[in-house]
Amino acid sequence: MPIYDAPTRDMQFLLHDCFDLQKYSNLPGFADATPDVIDAFLEESGKWHRDVLTPLNRVGDQEGCVRHDDGSVTTPTGFKDAYQQFCENGFGTIAMDPEYGGQGLPLALQYAVSEMTSASNQAFAMYPGLSGGAWRAIYQNGSDEQKQTYLPKMTTGEWTGTMNLTEPQCGTDLGLIRSKAVPQDDGTYKISGQKIWISAGEHDMSENIIHLVLARIEGAPDGIKGISLFIVPKFVLDADGNPGERNGVSCGGLEEKMGIHGNATCVMNYDEATGYLIGEENKGMRAMFVMMNEARLGVGMQGLAAAEVANQNAAAFARDRLQSRSLTGPKAPEQPADPIIVHPDVRRMLMDSRAFVEGARALTYWTAIHSDLADKAEDEGTRQKSDDYMALLTPIIKAYQTHKGFEATCDAMQVFGGSGYTEEWGMSQFLRDTKIAMIYEGTNGIQALDLVGRKLMADGGRYWQTFLKEVTEWCADNKGTSDVLDGYIGQIEATKGELQEAIQWLAANGMQNPNNAGAGSHDFLHLFGLVAMGYMWGMMTKTALEKAGGDDPYYDNKLITAQYFFSRLLPMSTTHLVRVKAGAEAMMALPAEAF
Amino acid sequence: MPIYDAPTRDMQFLLHDCFDLQKYSNLPGFADATPDVIDAFLEESGKWHRDVLTPLNRVGDQEGCVRHDDGSVTTPTGFKDAYQQFCENGFGTIAMDPEYGGQGLPLALQYAVSEMTSASNQAFAMYPGLSGGAWRAIYQNGSDEQKQTYLPKMTTGEWTGTMNLTEPQCGTDLGLIRSKAVPQDDGTYKISGQKIWISAGEHDMSENIIHLVLARIEGAPDGIKGISLFIVPKFVLDADGNPGERNGVSCGGLEEKMGIHGNATCVMNYDEATGYLIGEENKGMRAMFVMMNEARLGVGMQGLAAAEVANQNAAAFARDRLQSRSLTGPKAPEQPADPIIVHPDVRRMLMDSRAFVEGARALTYWTAIHSDLADKAEDEGTRQKSDDYMALLTPIIKAYQTHKGFEATCDAMQVFGGSGYTEEWGMSQFLRDTKIAMIYEGTNGIQALDLVGRKLMADGGRYWQTFLKEVTEWCADNKGTSDVLDGYIGQIEATKGELQEAIQWLAANGMQNPNNAGAGSHDFLHLFGLVAMGYMWGMMTKTALEKAGGDDPYYDNKLITAQYFFSRLLPMSTTHLVRVKAGAEAMMALPAEAF
Repeated sequence: MPIYDAPTRDMQFLLHDCFDLQKYSNLPGFADATPDVIDAFLEESGKWHRDVLTPLNRVGDQEGCVRHDDGSVTTPTGFKDAYQQFCENGFGTIAMDPEYGGQGLPLALQYAVSEMTSASNQAFAMYPGLSGGAWRAIYQNGSDEQKQTYLPKMTTGEWTGTMNLTEPQCGTDLGLIRSKAVPQDDGTYKISGQKIWISAGEHDMSENIIHLVLARIEGAPDGIKGISLFIVPKFVLDADGNPGERNGVSCGGLEEKMGIHGNATCVMNYDEATGYLIGEENKGMRAMFVMMNEARLGVGMQGLAAAEVANQNAAAFARDRLQSRSLTGPKAPEQPADPIIVHPDVRRMLMDSRAFVEGARALTYWTAIHSDLADKAEDEGTRQKSDDYMALLTPIIKAYQTHKGFEATCDAMQVFGGSGYTEEWGMSQFLRDTKIAMIYEGTNGIQALDLVGRKLMADGGRYWQTFLKEVTEWCADNKGTSDVLDGYIGQIEATKGELQEAIQWLAANGMQNPNNAGAGSHDFLHLFGLVAMGYMWGMMTKTALEKAGGDDPYYDNKLITAQYFFSRLLPMSTTHLVRVKAGAEAMMALPAEAF
Repeated sequence: MPIYDAPTRDMQFLLHDCFDLQKYSNLPGFADATPDVIDAFLEESGKWHRDVLTPLNRVGDQEGCVRHDDGSVTTPTGFKDAYQQFCENGFGTIAMDPEYGGQGLPLALQYAVSEMTSASNQAFAMYPGLSGGAWRAIYQNGSDEQKQTYLPKMTTGEWTGTMNLTEPQCGTDLGLIRSKAVPQDDGTYKISGQKIWISAGEHDMSENIIHLVLARIEGAPDGIKGISLFIVPKFVLDADGNPGERNGVSCGGLEEKMGIHGNATCVMNYDEATGYLIGEENKGMRAMFVMMNEARLGVGMQGLAAAEVANQNAAAFARDRLQSRSLTGPKAPEQPADPIIVHPDVRRMLMDSRAFVEGARALTYWTAIHSDLADKAEDEGTRQKSDDYMALLTPIIKAYQTHKGFEATCDAMQVFGGSGYTEEWGMSQFLRDTKIAMIYEGTNGIQALDLVGRKLMADGGRYWQTFLKEVTEWCADNKGTSDVLDGYIGQIEATKGELQEAIQWLAANGMQNPNNAGAGSHDFLHLFGLVAMGYMWGMMTKTALEKAGGDDPYYDNKLITAQYFFSRLLPMSTTHLVRVKAGAEAMMALPAEAF
């Protein structure tokens, strides 16, 4: 049975030592997030996720969800009860607005807790996860009445929410949506059409489900400029605001998937269901995109969560499994063989994952702090800068972290050898479950295109210029404090130089032939990811150097992992640059029928 | 339903144009392998695999194998009948010795056909695959009587074979084997113990199963020097050589695995089963290793086969699926959107796989030719050189190709977007099935250690020196014939230079601290793989240049893929070199309990 112990020590290092959340105590709610409060939260959450949610992970994989003939769906044994506890513990409402029942605490703390939920049970995590996305879509786009009507019950978890975008003929290209909305005299709409791959579309954990649905109002313009966003509750509310009559929406089937079996991935059929317009007509895509940034950050977090739990289990196995002797002589001569953690190639896989996870965790929390700054900072300049960061880093975090997170689960399986390939040890589930993170909320290819096509050149390149200026200044400010840090700063600057070279190449060649930008997008995103990770590892090294050498080996271990990152992970940037500059020619030359 | 069309055109290019099998017509059996014979074989085989074996792939995944209370095992619907046809068509006996009923044709042709079997149905392929391994172990190590007794029936497929190595406490480290063999007065042994993960250990497709079992004769030395190899038939043969009394071996359970569900992965219990020693006492590991080289080549082939079939399906989907417009303007203006094959990032994944598959196919067949030369060449120098190549390239082909093949199946899933993650489209099965190839027949980490620990320095470095000398000479011989080829030759030479630098670094630093060799082993193997792939792409480019520009677009397409390989895949070598030279320090520094 796989284990999971929340990495609270590493979370504390980031929230207290490295990013010092206390610095932001002037932001609304942040003053309440004292170190003691944060530590207590992390500890309680860590216990619950280890003891309650982790054991349900395999149950979810094996049982899956069951759709009954009446269209109702039963979740795996224990999920409903765990969801009740999750809600009572407030694990999903940490950063929600207190006006609607939330706790108003820093988003970075929510991310720490959400990381635990994803790591211990990804399929379960998606129920509150999607619900949080729907919450945010209503919060940011709904009328005051809509917010008052839906948000409090969604905050308590009594009602959950979903996002209904995809249709059989359109996933990425939402301009092709056919679901239609017919205006009624009372201001409501009748929604009809079929949506597919709707996570948590139907289940038995809440008394109502609030579907957010993209559809086309009759007569609307073609393409994405004719898409509107609607609230479609499973049960239409009665005059008292309680779930009343069943709406014309039902689950037509469950998708059979490679993983996340514990989550109900539904075909949803809308048949003249009553819907309520959110925001303006034909502005549905914009409303969706505002919400999507945070959802994508959350998916990027899932990548590191999967890597964390897979790596914990691989490390435990590697300490335990006896096989062959160390290349430098027996390390456990009293045993028939040494534990495989003495073998360099096993270490390689564990350290690759570790250096990725710790860097990605830093990047995710740091970006979460900027999300709060973008919303809540008093100073407009700070809000703008943080908003730029969010826009720039969101596709990078989503795609880079889910890609590397998936690779980490593959490596963890590899550490287990043949045992990893059996279902018994749980490594298969981690691999199978986390592959979806590379696909949903916009495939990683779409993220890369978002980065080079939109974010890079937006506002004359302001986003990346602001970000790289900060990195440049940080490097300059911290030079000369230690030889170790100086070496790393040199590497960060060199990698930043490669990134700038890539940007220049894209600017020069992407205009001339947009396929050049598309051809390099994947590698450009990974190159950018490495620069961002390098910056995080620079900051973490600085903090760890200040505290290392004492009784707590944590800081010394952090410095070893930093050394690993700079010597083995960051150098991949060079290959990414070569690939960006290879351009589109050979990639696009074959006729389609030659494949 | 996934499709598979055997890439016979590419196979013909390699066997006829590029490697010109006719050159070797002096080898026994090769004269029979005229181009017409080869083409007829490939065509017939292609049809059968497409029409009969491909449709059974999903059946195998969904039904799996069933073990009954009496220990018998039923294979998925259709497998038994397909196996009969497979045997009647002689698809597994192409290169076997005619003295025992084989066809005596070139091994490269067998590899082409085996690639089709793996690509269309990996779980099925393992039944004849393991049987072929057992066949070879008996052929190379058995007495004349043993060969006469077992091989003819294994050639016809009436009997199958298995390899029994792993036990619960030992996979990689076979020195820990506990299964014991007690000598009997009649010269036989009583074998007792438990073996796990025995592929095709029990099934309903053949009338007898010939188990090859590693066990320790009572009183034998500890470790691998006390391991012997035994034949243990499921049914002991009667006086006429027919299956008689049931032996003391039975299937105690089936493993629940991530993939290859159609193959029975058995726990095998030996309870005083009658066994016959093969070769000498305590020399079982050597006997096993001789056989293992070819088995590992075969597994490397599985990596490219999986990539081929996954990529075929991804390309078909990409031509068909309409989503968004090309970055350079609509390509299918009459449709609501363009087929996604117009998008560079989709192409990137298809071309990555294609460039890998075609290079790996060349490397596999080229090595298969050397395998025949090592066995059959008249000239001792040629035999020695080819034997060196086999020894050197086997771990590289096994690990590099299964690693890249797995990545190709992941990319193929990614091309499908959300559809790829459902079980309906079959991409999940390709990914799940092919992961095992990175693990079995020695994990890829073990292959890397075999390369740096054994093969690299064996005979004073003769293997790699001979190989690199050939590459150097080929580069020199072919310079100046065309600008395109000159450019590639320059790149091959540069990458060869990086490889030599890595070898020097390992020689200097691996002696001093063996962990330095282990720490770099994975990246060294991949660097070597790239040099070998570069050499293959050089040879293929040369051949294609001679034939390009005519009516057959095949050769022009080959040149485009070559350009892609040299501009985007080969440059990864630089990062591998940096990682090799990073050494073991940071990798090994953390105490085990810190993970």
